Amino acid sequence: MRVFVPFDARDPKTRLAPLLDEGERRTVARAMLRDVLAALREMSHDRCVLATEPIDCDCAVRVDERPLTPAVNDALTSVDGPAAVVMADLALATPAALGRLFDPDAGVTLAPGRGGGTNALVVRTEDFRVDYHGLSYRDHVTAAQDAGADVATVDSFRLSNDIDDPSDLVDVLVHTDGHTASALRDLDLSLALTDDGPAVTRSP
Amino acid sequence: MRVFVPFDARDPKTRLAPLLDEGERRTVARAMLRDVLAALREMSHDRCVLATEPIDCDCAVRVDERPLTPAVNDALTSVDGPAAVVMADLALATPAALGRLFDPDAGVTLAPGRGGGTNALVVRTEDFRVDYHGLSYRDHVTAAQDAGADVATVDSFRLSNDIDDPSDLVDVLVHTDGHTASALRDLDLSLALTDDGPAVTRSP
Repeated sequence: MRVFVPFDARDPKTRLAPLLDEGERRTVARAMLRDVLAALREMSHDRCVLATEPIDCDCAVRVDERPLTPAVNDALTSVDGPAAVVMADLALATPAALGRLFDPDAGVTLAPGRGGGTNALVVRTEDFRVDYHGLSYRDHVTAAQDAGADVATVDSFRLSNDIDDPSDLVDVLVHTDGHTASALRDLDLSLALTDDGPAVTRSP
Repeated sequence: MRVFVPFDARDPKTRLAPLLDEGERRTVARAMLRDVLAALREMSHDRCVLATEPIDCDCAVRVDERPLTPAVNDALTSVDGPAAVVMADLALATPAALGRLFDPDAGVTLAPGRGGGTNALVVRTEDFRVDYHGLSYRDHVTAAQDAGADVATVDSFRLSNDIDDPSDLVDVLVHTDGHTASALRDLDLSLALTDDGPAVTRSP
């Protein structure tokens, strides 16, 4: 199946700014993309990075400068048959977790992200369009029903954890050991217990 | 299997204070407990609320005023054979999600919580003790290995979402329709799109 991985190559992960400068955010974002692509490669999927500008990687790249929603919808309509969209910041994704995304035979399969979002989806129906604005999980369920498609939902902690804020990085260091965890360690970042609980902090 | 559900009956969910006053926090905390107990009842487990003071509910109650870790460890040692611990604030828990917790035959099965925590566990080995302080998931893996037990991990979004902060309530209203969602609606709380993204806010 063709799997699109949308990636902001210009100014990725701005909400990590309290912890990482612009160059570091770029490094960590690329490491997360590599982890997602590596997990998909193990599953022999036909991977395509949907990037805002040309990037080097070990699979196909489709460049689309537009915002996420129109870029993904155009990509989906470019494919005959089923297609999938997996966010590039799912640093906790594993082949096992992603396998559960591709298992159901539903018209639309959704992997919820925290806070009402949609972190991954598989589309096996026509006439379904994404809309990532706002409470996208709920909107995608409605859009699937409007397209006459049945909906399956994947209950996965690993796929629910898109990395947006510094606090999200805790689970990267607890639950993974891939490119992202290595990149964080190379930046002298590590787990610490703070007054606010576990956190990823810069070594002094 | 005996399932302990630890519950702070005194001053629950203080981090919800930006949105809910003390009485409302108590109401929502009790609603979350009811949702967790209802999901466990459907699975015919032998439920026991491990409460800091006596409370009314439709199952056994064990009162222990001490902090979470010693209270849970005493409860676990009070049982011959396997036992489980499921946090009372897993408002997204369903029988299906909890079923995956009880499926593995491992010595210790862990359901990670966001931020390095442990939201639920099943213990089928002797000599395993919990420690909920800090990065408890990592510590529980080590403790299980030290006890000579194999470890299984449940990859569940629903079990990873303990409700601590107001932002956590978004997924309650998106993904559930139980006692907690009703309690929130009764308090005139609903989903809204704010400048910071989806949120649960009080109707004006």
